[in-house]
Amino acid sequence: MSVVTAAPFDSPTLDPELEENVVNTIRMLALDAVQAANSGHAGLPMGMATAALTLWRRHLRYSPTNPEWANRDRFILSAGHGSMLLYALLNLTGYDLPLQQLKNFRQWGSQTPGHPEYGHAPGVETTTGPLGQGFANGVGMAIAEQWLAANYNRPGFDVVSHHVFAIVSDGDLMEGVAQEAASLAGHLRLGKLIYLYDDNRVTIDGYTDLAFTEDQYRRFEAYGWHVQKVDGMDSAAVDAAIGAAKQDPRPSLIGCTTIIGFGAPKQGEPDMHSDPLPAEEVAQTKASLEWPQDPTFYLPPEVSAFCLQAVDRGKRLEGDDCDLWEAYAAAHPEPAAELAGLLRGELPDGWEEALPVFEGGGSQATRNASGDTLNALAPVIPNLIGGSADLAPSNKTIISGSPDFQPDSYSGRNFRFGVREHGMGAVLSGMALHGGVIPYGGTFLVFSDYMRASVRLAALMGVPVIYIFTHDSIGVGEDGPTHQPVEHVAALRAIPNLTVIRPADANEVTQAWKSALENRGGPTALILSRQNLPVFDRTAVQIGAADHAAKGGYVFFDGATNPESPALVFISSGSELELAYAAAQQLAESGAAVRVVSLPSWELFAAQSAEYQREVLPPDALKVSVEAGVVQGWERWVGNDPARGAAIGLDRFGASAPQQDVYANLGLTVEAVVRAAQALLET
Amino acid sequence: MSVVTAAPFDSPTLDPELEENVVNTIRMLALDAVQAANSGHAGLPMGMATAALTLWRRHLRYSPTNPEWANRDRFILSAGHGSMLLYALLNLTGYDLPLQQLKNFRQWGSQTPGHPEYGHAPGVETTTGPLGQGFANGVGMAIAEQWLAANYNRPGFDVVSHHVFAIVSDGDLMEGVAQEAASLAGHLRLGKLIYLYDDNRVTIDGYTDLAFTEDQYRRFEAYGWHVQKVDGMDSAAVDAAIGAAKQDPRPSLIGCTTIIGFGAPKQGEPDMHSDPLPAEEVAQTKASLEWPQDPTFYLPPEVSAFCLQAVDRGKRLEGDDCDLWEAYAAAHPEPAAELAGLLRGELPDGWEEALPVFEGGGSQATRNASGDTLNALAPVIPNLIGGSADLAPSNKTIISGSPDFQPDSYSGRNFRFGVREHGMGAVLSGMALHGGVIPYGGTFLVFSDYMRASVRLAALMGVPVIYIFTHDSIGVGEDGPTHQPVEHVAALRAIPNLTVIRPADANEVTQAWKSALENRGGPTALILSRQNLPVFDRTAVQIGAADHAAKGGYVFFDGATNPESPALVFISSGSELELAYAAAQQLAESGAAVRVVSLPSWELFAAQSAEYQREVLPPDALKVSVEAGVVQGWERWVGNDPARGAAIGLDRFGASAPQQDVYANLGLTVEAVVRAAQALLET
Repeated sequence: MSVVTAAPFDSPTLDPELEENVVNTIRMLALDAVQAANSGHAGLPMGMATAALTLWRRHLRYSPTNPEWANRDRFILSAGHGSMLLYALLNLTGYDLPLQQLKNFRQWGSQTPGHPEYGHAPGVETTTGPLGQGFANGVGMAIAEQWLAANYNRPGFDVVSHHVFAIVSDGDLMEGVAQEAASLAGHLRLGKLIYLYDDNRVTIDGYTDLAFTEDQYRRFEAYGWHVQKVDGMDSAAVDAAIGAAKQDPRPSLIGCTTIIGFGAPKQGEPDMHSDPLPAEEVAQTKASLEWPQDPTFYLPPEVSAFCLQAVDRGKRLEGDDCDLWEAYAAAHPEPAAELAGLLRGELPDGWEEALPVFEGGGSQATRNASGDTLNALAPVIPNLIGGSADLAPSNKTIISGSPDFQPDSYSGRNFRFGVREHGMGAVLSGMALHGGVIPYGGTFLVFSDYMRASVRLAALMGVPVIYIFTHDSIGVGEDGPTHQPVEHVAALRAIPNLTVIRPADANEVTQAWKSALENRGGPTALILSRQNLPVFDRTAVQIGAADHAAKGGYVFFDGATNPESPALVFISSGSELELAYAAAQQLAESGAAVRVVSLPSWELFAAQSAEYQREVLPPDALKVSVEAGVVQGWERWVGNDPARGAAIGLDRFGASAPQQDVYANLGLTVEAVVRAAQALLET
Repeated sequence: MSVVTAAPFDSPTLDPELEENVVNTIRMLALDAVQAANSGHAGLPMGMATAALTLWRRHLRYSPTNPEWANRDRFILSAGHGSMLLYALLNLTGYDLPLQQLKNFRQWGSQTPGHPEYGHAPGVETTTGPLGQGFANGVGMAIAEQWLAANYNRPGFDVVSHHVFAIVSDGDLMEGVAQEAASLAGHLRLGKLIYLYDDNRVTIDGYTDLAFTEDQYRRFEAYGWHVQKVDGMDSAAVDAAIGAAKQDPRPSLIGCTTIIGFGAPKQGEPDMHSDPLPAEEVAQTKASLEWPQDPTFYLPPEVSAFCLQAVDRGKRLEGDDCDLWEAYAAAHPEPAAELAGLLRGELPDGWEEALPVFEGGGSQATRNASGDTLNALAPVIPNLIGGSADLAPSNKTIISGSPDFQPDSYSGRNFRFGVREHGMGAVLSGMALHGGVIPYGGTFLVFSDYMRASVRLAALMGVPVIYIFTHDSIGVGEDGPTHQPVEHVAALRAIPNLTVIRPADANEVTQAWKSALENRGGPTALILSRQNLPVFDRTAVQIGAADHAAKGGYVFFDGATNPESPALVFISSGSELELAYAAAQQLAESGAAVRVVSLPSWELFAAQSAEYQREVLPPDALKVSVEAGVVQGWERWVGNDPARGAAIGLDRFGASAPQQDVYANLGLTVEAVVRAAQALLET
């Protein structure tokens, strides 16, 4: 790397030949990688290379040697199928992503999966590919930036101050999740958000006029965005547009008209969207761009030298930021110390002491206990922030005493996501990815379906988001089957790395919140009742302490004279623990050796030692599970031998009626539970 | 009903006092019902009663005594929480929904659930409540209308010609599913679509300015809609706007500014969105509207008499339509006979004969076999129509030789839904609800998450939609975990009344299509591979005939000398049947009494007799399941005793690499299957 270049990396005017060389390097790295992998998408990188380079040269603030620099600008390739554009930029600008990784594009164990995945290569800020998600993640990042800035910056010390840039595609603009997030971003006037829209008029099916003929620019104006449209392959135009966007207080969409697969014989055509090219077309492409046919993955030395200046530029930017931080810390030690801790992802010492203890004996909906717990924690965990998709009064997500997060009050902790569950889901992930905040979001459990794609990606990325899903069963009652989740707990349990917790009473709720806050490696879904549930008296003999709930499952009641060998174990979660307990008491009174296990979280319980699991659920005991949902998966705990176990649940949708009528008519009663147990005990 | 009224029901000018009486009757029925049920939403009915009555009097073409009249206008209350508005109108206009049903609002067994449910009360065209869905269902209905009209109307015989009206809310406009459907409707220029938007500036959380400050009218203009805004409580203005909308070739949004909970002390306030009122506020409301305090559910005789004229009006409209049909049938007997059959939901005689038979021995992706099957069926089933959410080349959803369904070619059978999975899902349901067409829609299985809320409602309603979910496992390979479904088959199996079929080879695919087309009581999800799979030679000894696949599960291979008592049964679906078969062959060669069961559909198998199930899966045999997904639920078939059964699958997300590498690295190999079986056989 001894080649000397005169042009500074961020020079406003660049020798056109050098620029073309850099742009073509990006294009051909993408092309070569897709050819080598025999799959992938070179079309987007070839069309957007100029615009992306302009952004990365002239505007994006990043430090390749410290990808974790807290105050960096965020860059999202929402059109994740064009991953090679990002990998090429990361490699060229000196991130720790060697060329060999690009050569291993889409291979087992590489850092360069088919779509950018958070945690694989440095500089990948979020996992993208499922369209619309990256777009909405960026809105969450911009929200986190504004919230931290409003709470921790001090006059003259804008220690939190950065932009969120993204490259988005036609597909992103069509997806509902992005439309929801765009509307929210416009409402919130997130001026730090600047999106380059690759307006290439091509999707997988063909030209966009097949299905997408709306005036999307006007639509974004209607959302309250600042909208521009430029030639995306003219760097000066892109540069000027980004400059104008930075000046405008609204979120910005910059339409960049481009030619997909630029340079290839079929440039601009739908065929260029994906898949490798025939060898002769590769040759023609390289010829048309005056690029050497060999070697593949060719890096011209002057291009390398030029781009690697990004390392020093990054260090300089980061250094300036560091100086500012030090002055800030000297002038404002308290917020500085607090902010530093938050950015490190730490919880304040002793936060657990704020967890409430609910007195036994009364009754309370677990959603209410969740609201109480949230409000007990809020004063000690300053960055616990969130809201609801227009169900705040029902989800109990309001932090009392704090204003809303609104354009005139960015320091507020209460978020109004609107009737936009999917947008909320992706925004929450973006907030968590940004760092510095612990986001939560609520809706009815039945509407977790609307946001499921975002929940999945949070689990895949391993980001700590807390979902507050209330109204968790047929206990919803009168609103009927459209609002009664019956399959949702099972469906959420199916998602790897998502921790699902369905607490049975108020004191299990506090433990669920504790588990959620301690889970830094993935999202947690709290499944909460609408209806009142007994708050069990934990001081009574034979009732397990609620803090065992953190183990996912524990012995709640033992009616056996020899607790090591109960004849039958009831297993239950949430609102049905009450039924199981009543059934067990009834049977115990008539002398049966029965036990009740509360199993609020399969994932937490499965993470315990095999010995503990066997202790709680002795393999030889008969088993009866009770849960007001589909029984799918419960065979894991009760087996599939009808003589040895039974799963009591639902095999149908619910119905509209007062909740006690729904329970009774659908067979979820103490009598039914007793009967099922007796049938097993008598065989 | 002997009261005589001078004013005809659809009179353009109505005595203001009479109109006010009718409107107040609707309002107070809603209020009384919510009070009686002690839950529900009277605010919307009270605000929108005038606009709704105007629509139902002046424009909507319906016949209360024949709710199934094929060419009726469709009316959707997308804001389903305001269900009492619809129930009141149905009761007043003479549908078979007695007042007692309104008094039983939200009670067990009533026809008046909390949200309108398809199939409960006559005149309810779709199940609504989850916001955005009804909006998008209507787009599907308008599509079905245009398609049938384009294919079956003849000059002078517009036998298919009706509008689709809806009342939509702020929540509907915020939801992504509706935004996607709105963009599609604008693209398709569905001029028969006319939506009244209840612009009441209130949602559950409070005033809309909390979260929804975009210019939604401008947004709809950007989608290509005809947009108007009127005083929604001024019947003449609403009437004129609907009239103008009918003249405009674009879909129409008519903003109706209203006062939520009109008449109540807190009218116009967020508190009016839901829940019963305190008794004194009910009294004040009735007083302010000059309504008798008692009895509740009061129907003034003149209001009843006036509204019941809708019955004769409906008979007249239907009669005219009937006359037109008879003339059409005389002039064009062939299309008339065909259309009549389609509208009855019939499949043509002998359609099964068109199902292809694939020769054994080669290999083919099941998605390709699906495309072949679709194209074999298309010529004999003229109303089998559908498309993909911008993945047509991948999903193999194109009917070759047919044009696209586009504004200039409404007769086309190929739909371009755009990158709008959720919109597609709800549109498909709307098409099926309309009747006359058999809709299918495709996307990658992993993106079933995006449309899950619509899939659920299709299952709840029991409408026959066919989902074509391809790229069904880690077999997706290089695109990586964002595109590799691992939990989706389990998550879909959790939905009641959804039939999930994952065929193992080309000939099981044809059986899957057969099952899907025969399933008239709910949706079917076809789960198809991206990668090639062997086409098994069904003539070979010991290989079960593929048509047993229609039973959901069958003996595919029996290596036991005594087939009635295999020592071990492998159970598998889809692409992993190949692994199970190879493992079984290996073990059989060394003398083990093993069997392979192909289990493409749990739902179909569970519907077979207990005897058949026991025959296929003998309870005493050891069991090993193999499926490239989470094992959740497989314990149902293999049990939870590690000495008696094993479920081989995944407990993690996939990875980006060539598919054979992903399979090998994640332990889905013949060797692993053999090892698991041997371990069981040896204990």
